[in-house]
Amino acid sequence: MSVAAATINKFTNFSNWFDELLFQARIADSRFPVKGFIVYLENGMFILEMIRRRLEELLVETGHKTMMFPLVTTDELFGKEAEHIKGFSSEVFVIERAGDKQLEKKLIVRPTSETIIYPMFKLWIRSHADLPLKVHQTVNVYRYETKATRPLYRAREFPWNEAHTAHATAADAEQQVREAIEIYSKVLRELGISYLLLKRPDFDKFAGAKYSIAFDAWNPDGKVNQVATVHNLGRNFSKVFEIEFEQKDGSRALVYQLCYGFGLSRVLAALISQHGDDRGCVFPPSVAPVQVVIVPIPFKGYEEAIASYCKKIHERLARVYRCVMDDREDVTPGEKFYHWEMLGVPVRVEVGPKEVSSNKVTLFRRDTLERVEVDLESLEAQVEELMRKIFTSLRERSSRMMERLIVEAQTPDEVKKALSERKIARIEWCGKEDCAIKLKEYAGGEIRGSRFDVAEVPQKSCIVCGERAQEVVYVAKAY
Amino acid sequence: MSVAAATINKFTNFSNWFDELLFQARIADSRFPVKGFIVYLENGMFILEMIRRRLEELLVETGHKTMMFPLVTTDELFGKEAEHIKGFSSEVFVIERAGDKQLEKKLIVRPTSETIIYPMFKLWIRSHADLPLKVHQTVNVYRYETKATRPLYRAREFPWNEAHTAHATAADAEQQVREAIEIYSKVLRELGISYLLLKRPDFDKFAGAKYSIAFDAWNPDGKVNQVATVHNLGRNFSKVFEIEFEQKDGSRALVYQLCYGFGLSRVLAALISQHGDDRGCVFPPSVAPVQVVIVPIPFKGYEEAIASYCKKIHERLARVYRCVMDDREDVTPGEKFYHWEMLGVPVRVEVGPKEVSSNKVTLFRRDTLERVEVDLESLEAQVEELMRKIFTSLRERSSRMMERLIVEAQTPDEVKKALSERKIARIEWCGKEDCAIKLKEYAGGEIRGSRFDVAEVPQKSCIVCGERAQEVVYVAKAY
Repeated sequence: MSVAAATINKFTNFSNWFDELLFQARIADSRFPVKGFIVYLENGMFILEMIRRRLEELLVETGHKTMMFPLVTTDELFGKEAEHIKGFSSEVFVIERAGDKQLEKKLIVRPTSETIIYPMFKLWIRSHADLPLKVHQTVNVYRYETKATRPLYRAREFPWNEAHTAHATAADAEQQVREAIEIYSKVLRELGISYLLLKRPDFDKFAGAKYSIAFDAWNPDGKVNQVATVHNLGRNFSKVFEIEFEQKDGSRALVYQLCYGFGLSRVLAALISQHGDDRGCVFPPSVAPVQVVIVPIPFKGYEEAIASYCKKIHERLARVYRCVMDDREDVTPGEKFYHWEMLGVPVRVEVGPKEVSSNKVTLFRRDTLERVEVDLESLEAQVEELMRKIFTSLRERSSRMMERLIVEAQTPDEVKKALSERKIARIEWCGKEDCAIKLKEYAGGEIRGSRFDVAEVPQKSCIVCGERAQEVVYVAKAY
Repeated sequence: MSVAAATINKFTNFSNWFDELLFQARIADSRFPVKGFIVYLENGMFILEMIRRRLEELLVETGHKTMMFPLVTTDELFGKEAEHIKGFSSEVFVIERAGDKQLEKKLIVRPTSETIIYPMFKLWIRSHADLPLKVHQTVNVYRYETKATRPLYRAREFPWNEAHTAHATAADAEQQVREAIEIYSKVLRELGISYLLLKRPDFDKFAGAKYSIAFDAWNPDGKVNQVATVHNLGRNFSKVFEIEFEQKDGSRALVYQLCYGFGLSRVLAALISQHGDDRGCVFPPSVAPVQVVIVPIPFKGYEEAIASYCKKIHERLARVYRCVMDDREDVTPGEKFYHWEMLGVPVRVEVGPKEVSSNKVTLFRRDTLERVEVDLESLEAQVEELMRKIFTSLRERSSRMMERLIVEAQTPDEVKKALSERKIARIEWCGKEDCAIKLKEYAGGEIRGSRFDVAEVPQKSCIVCGERAQEVVYVAKAY
């Protein structure tokens, strides 16, 4: 990050702050010559992989089978579910040609994989013994976004994990909604990311779903960042894809289905945006590409003593952590601090003559920028403890920030004001789409839905039409 | 695998053997409704992931940065290198439309990523300090194959890892060829896969390369299975993509480049085909989805004793291995044996009254189908030792088979005969493409190249034209 960039504040100038950081911290390069497509760099890939592994671990533990389905479907399969095709048809990439041959059947590049996976479910599911069936895959999906794209948030290609399940009863499907939410919540909690768990209004549910639950993470610019969704599909898809099973009594029935998706690049964006500061990235220790950096502070006459002291520290810490020793000779300690702070390394070990002579080590924590001196002897335990503190403090800071971003609004004007101040408005609403449209036109934000994890009972009237309110909902701009 | 299928021999009826096994062992399902695209199932995905992790570990250790580049390139970029476009243009999928909008610029779906990655290299490489630059990605690539497709071997979508490097000098590039070969050899060696390391004839090199090295694994049907390739690109691509750097003396020069690819699905195919037998898969312990299965042999009056004995064994082994206890009550031990043998589980633990009363355990090894009785006390050590033996025996068996498959041929007729017997012919050749074409027309096999790791000096004359031979080469049909 250039010196100029370091003075950019994420709340007051989010776009510049984020774009500059992406490339400087080696997360992504957005200069790829096709609009909406970016290159993920090594640090971005490292974190994506860490998140993916943890998510997949939890999915496999709960009985989801890891699979990989094709990139493409046919026009015919894609068109089966009426609402689904309505929702996606304008944004799918279409392949009609290979080399100079016209394909007999044109292919649709997946924007999501219901119409690719469910023909296989039809083949695989025969009886109640085959249920529940739970599968998942981590792949890239493709949507021809016409809104402005932003790296990690909204692109024409993005990496995600999608899970698809089939169940014998509606109650089993409801239970699966809970399991999916629990898995996603766990991953996000472990990353210290704060979000609102919302049931989307009916007009904003997934194309083809009965209802949709979404994880909306807060963002410094006030927009919300939908990082994951869970959709109860009911029997909308099983009807058209003819996914039937034989029940215990021998009769045949359609399965109940769910699909749920976890936006890996959007979670990466949330990690950067929620925890980062004016100096750059601040990564939770569990996913930081480098967890500890050792920086010797050279002092004339102590060069060798400091070097060998640092070497011993590195040997010890590298056994437990992703630990780098920065002993470059042509770079000042200040420049090194600057570099590793921008990269988001949670803990820095500083060693000068004072540390060597007193058998101590100075630890710098990236989140609060504080230093603490510890005994060399208990180094591992002290670093471990500090990592725990850093994680807790990041999570709490993010959670406090989300609380602070939510403001009550009694009128459309108050909503407008809240949004202009980069906040999320909490309002009471009658439930009619008409009022949502009016509010969006006037205040510029969308009704994102009502809390799914907490029952919030409306007390008054819809802030748009004045009729009796049916729901407490959250209004925000969104990526 | 059905009882009928179990009598199918992989050498005499490879296609049926392989296709049946794929689905029964939960590797892949080839019934997806778009030709050339398959679904990878949980066991296939597990092994692919294990191979991927090991390969990526070695790549990262040797300084390759993990990245992810877009799926698509533009027509213009794709067309820059004349030989490259000639080689691939007839088999690329083309996207010209999104929804019902015609795209301004049509997009080419990657058949390989040179034309996607090198425009970024041009942006990233400035000076000699930026070299060598080594990057890699694990992605799916797309080729509109017109030959018959076969799951894992030849499909229109396949997963691979591709690495791309840039160097300051031709000598550095040559050195990198060695490093790439060493990495791939290591992964294949650890899987017990045998192959010929061949320098492809000039007419069969990668489109745009100076020369190509390939790993051709043997296959039970006599065809070779190219599992990996390493290409020295010289400056063919840096010239057209203008990838220049400033040398130490301040002058500018073009970089030397390599690309190399490791076909994950083809390596999975080789694992199955080289090690499998008439009972099904035989997986090396390192990648087997299940490493140990425990099967209680029920005996009246001993039910509880056997169950608790098995439970203790499971507790001990599950700490170290991917270990399954098969205590299903409605399935006979014979059926269980059959099932887990087909899945390729390397070690089976059998526990009956005899084992319980003597404090012993019977271990069954999947590769040789032999049983050995061991003391319960030393269980972990015995299983560990057996795993080592199984791996060594699989590797040696595969290696012996490859030696046996290679036969000397002095005439085109002998080549024809060898190929008809599912062998690989070793011949002397003048080096002219004309003779290669004639031989292929007559005998049906391709000249795959000369050994790269062993110097083989021709003694006589080309078996086609009778002129002085320049090379000892291997002839085979190929996937």
